[in-house]
Amino acid sequence: MKLRLIILFTFCGIGLQAQENLDNSFIKSIYDTALSESRSYDWLNHLSNQIGGRLSGSVQAEQAVDYTYKVIENLKLDKLWKQEITVPKWVRGTPEFAYMELSPGATTNIPILALGGSVATPSLGIKAELIEVTYLDELKTLGKKAISGKIVFFNRPMDPKMINTFNTYSKAVDQRSKGAAEAAKYGALGVIVRSMNLRLDDFPHTGGMSYGGLSDAMKIPAAAVSTNHANFLSTTLKLNPSLKFYFKQNCRTLADVPSHNVIGEIRGSEFPEEIIVIGGHLDSWDVGDGAHDDGAGCVQSMAVLEILKKLNYTPKRTIRVVMFMNEENGLRGGTAYAKRAVELGEQHIFALESDSGGFTPRGFSFDASAANMSQIMEWKVLFEPYMAHTFTEGGSGADIGPLKNEGIVLAGLRPDSQRYFDHHHAATDTFDAVNKRELDMGSAAMTALVYLFDRYGLEAAEIK
Amino acid sequence: MKLRLIILFTFCGIGLQAQENLDNSFIKSIYDTALSESRSYDWLNHLSNQIGGRLSGSVQAEQAVDYTYKVIENLKLDKLWKQEITVPKWVRGTPEFAYMELSPGATTNIPILALGGSVATPSLGIKAELIEVTYLDELKTLGKKAISGKIVFFNRPMDPKMINTFNTYSKAVDQRSKGAAEAAKYGALGVIVRSMNLRLDDFPHTGGMSYGGLSDAMKIPAAAVSTNHANFLSTTLKLNPSLKFYFKQNCRTLADVPSHNVIGEIRGSEFPEEIIVIGGHLDSWDVGDGAHDDGAGCVQSMAVLEILKKLNYTPKRTIRVVMFMNEENGLRGGTAYAKRAVELGEQHIFALESDSGGFTPRGFSFDASAANMSQIMEWKVLFEPYMAHTFTEGGSGADIGPLKNEGIVLAGLRPDSQRYFDHHHAATDTFDAVNKRELDMGSAAMTALVYLFDRYGLEAAEIK
Repeated sequence: MKLRLIILFTFCGIGLQAQENLDNSFIKSIYDTALSESRSYDWLNHLSNQIGGRLSGSVQAEQAVDYTYKVIENLKLDKLWKQEITVPKWVRGTPEFAYMELSPGATTNIPILALGGSVATPSLGIKAELIEVTYLDELKTLGKKAISGKIVFFNRPMDPKMINTFNTYSKAVDQRSKGAAEAAKYGALGVIVRSMNLRLDDFPHTGGMSYGGLSDAMKIPAAAVSTNHANFLSTTLKLNPSLKFYFKQNCRTLADVPSHNVIGEIRGSEFPEEIIVIGGHLDSWDVGDGAHDDGAGCVQSMAVLEILKKLNYTPKRTIRVVMFMNEENGLRGGTAYAKRAVELGEQHIFALESDSGGFTPRGFSFDASAANMSQIMEWKVLFEPYMAHTFTEGGSGADIGPLKNEGIVLAGLRPDSQRYFDHHHAATDTFDAVNKRELDMGSAAMTALVYLFDRYGLEAAEIK
Repeated sequence: MKLRLIILFTFCGIGLQAQENLDNSFIKSIYDTALSESRSYDWLNHLSNQIGGRLSGSVQAEQAVDYTYKVIENLKLDKLWKQEITVPKWVRGTPEFAYMELSPGATTNIPILALGGSVATPSLGIKAELIEVTYLDELKTLGKKAISGKIVFFNRPMDPKMINTFNTYSKAVDQRSKGAAEAAKYGALGVIVRSMNLRLDDFPHTGGMSYGGLSDAMKIPAAAVSTNHANFLSTTLKLNPSLKFYFKQNCRTLADVPSHNVIGEIRGSEFPEEIIVIGGHLDSWDVGDGAHDDGAGCVQSMAVLEILKKLNYTPKRTIRVVMFMNEENGLRGGTAYAKRAVELGEQHIFALESDSGGFTPRGFSFDASAANMSQIMEWKVLFEPYMAHTFTEGGSGADIGPLKNEGIVLAGLRPDSQRYFDHHHAATDTFDAVNKRELDMGSAAMTALVYLFDRYGLEAAEIK
């Protein structure tokens, strides 16, 4: 009896060991392929330099749909299609213009970028005194008397002390996303927001904003200023509190237009009904070329299929790549994708998004049940040789969020975050800021994780 | 008795916990200070943009001595001095010139950089057929007959499949460091080496080489070509094996000149005789401005003292910062520093070098006894919140290497290595390629480690 147990344990041990060796060696070949053969950097070059910024509803966004459709076509998957959706169409219009006026005629130009979704100024622009505000709460304290007729200048820097810069971002972005809606309630004429950027430079960073339930008549225009210009305005304002700020922008929201998610898949050989999804978003802001946000995530997602095909891997489950449209200002692509999955009764077991820049991967964050999480944590060791083994519980990605249910694990690739906000939503988000090896390391880490989910499925899925 | 033990254990537990909390909170304040108050990025700006490339023996190298002396002076340490040394003085001379000749008159210019320490070509240059070689061993197989009268073209790319790019470098760099010495033995007229660069670009990368014991008459000139031009040459050579390569360089080695290490210290309050050293090297190659190699390591090392001073930390042990001179082509600074330490009977317990670029720190590598290593591994957890907790056994740094003895732990900061060889020894090693936050994270990790060595010393040192 004892002997039998020992033999059994020895056998299990050998079995587990052999399996781990197999995984180790397959993951090694994934990395080798990614680092020496992947074409994803060339794809990103095309998306960035031949197409450029890809705001939802723009010609460029549709060019990106067509281009990635062709790239995926060349991967010769089992199935490839476009999912038709409608997307909002916000346009920047003619270039914004702003200046600071110390006294009539004594002006200094200030570069600004209208926030995505903002209304235009009146055609002659707005000129008014500035009132500098740090926290949104202060609006209430200041009250209508102090704010009415002025331009509110939100100037709370991102906290440099946090290690994960996305956490810093989430603590600062209310100024951009809700600042105008709140300031409008107190009679502000417009809003100027310090850019969400940890670096001091001259580039304004745009990004989405919402007016909440505000009526059209109540909406006020909002624009971003660079971190350097925010500091400059703040300093000057202290010396001369009655200085005036002028800005003019004619951005506007047009009628919705048709657009597409691009979807390709390899059909599973054993459990085709179990679907694994990998994706990034095709749209970007209209400044810069969206190389990090989220060209990188798109090409990495396509690279997962490219690498598996190059390795002649036959997946047990269906592996699907999705180029989501309209993450930046509507999430229509992600929402439509999840809605269609429900309509078709599709069973998604795992979804992975890359939307945090093409930097060296540090690991993944998972939105998973405790049982699934403990399964995942056993795989951590496989990522140690690649230094991509920081596995945390947390968010995944905006586009795959609508897929959430009890039977799925959602995950986000987590690259090094230190440089991300130097580029985010700004003219500095360009192809040259992406390093090929860092990008390829991300594709490899993603492919390795997809391989493990494909090979082992979700143990806890049966609970469903 | 049992009760006593329990109480003792509980007390110990509380003591350890309190101590760990103290360390955690002090390390947090180190990171906070580094990320929000350190001036190291400004110092690097000066070293890079006001001074520039700092080859040993150059005016710029001495400007860097004077500048860092002043920076350290402003830190108001207990002691500051220059250690006089002599350094080799190799000069590039007038710009190199090279071309490939398909047929007389049909030439294509090829950018080259003489390798550090190379001799000049004859004043009219060298024109000869190329023979492409992958491994140094092949020279023997090819023999004098094939090699004599030709220019050997070493063209083994760095292996993209290794994760730590320094490992890849060490497997490729023999072409640069020993290629000329070996090829000369077979009658080659000169040597062209593919740059040590994982990226395909147009920049040749220089770097040190040695002729070993070769007599002056035997020495042949050596230069680097960019990765793109290496590929171009190789392809063209296959099509036209009799193409000729011309190059001309008038670099030379002059007489040694005086130079300096710059050294500052805070005297220990309890164990002043136990010395902790932190350093980087002041000299760099003469192309680019040496921002990553090793301006970053210099300013990070000074930042360690800056941060400890800002936090009003009173070290138990003596903490010394050293700006080493001549790491790139002689190691005279590191050698002289260690020699002087022996002469003075100084007891160094810990030396830390930063010479792997100013990128996001991933951890440290340690050259330590097993007993010291096990002490160090207990600290790993303290670095986890900052994702700088990859602690490995291995090399440390060239400058601190000569300090090695049984009573010391040597360590090297290990930043993310993916982008390092894009910049190493090339015109692309410039200030704009250094990210402020990544640099500051390195300073913080170094300060945290120095703090721990200062606070706890070396448990295994007593064995000595």
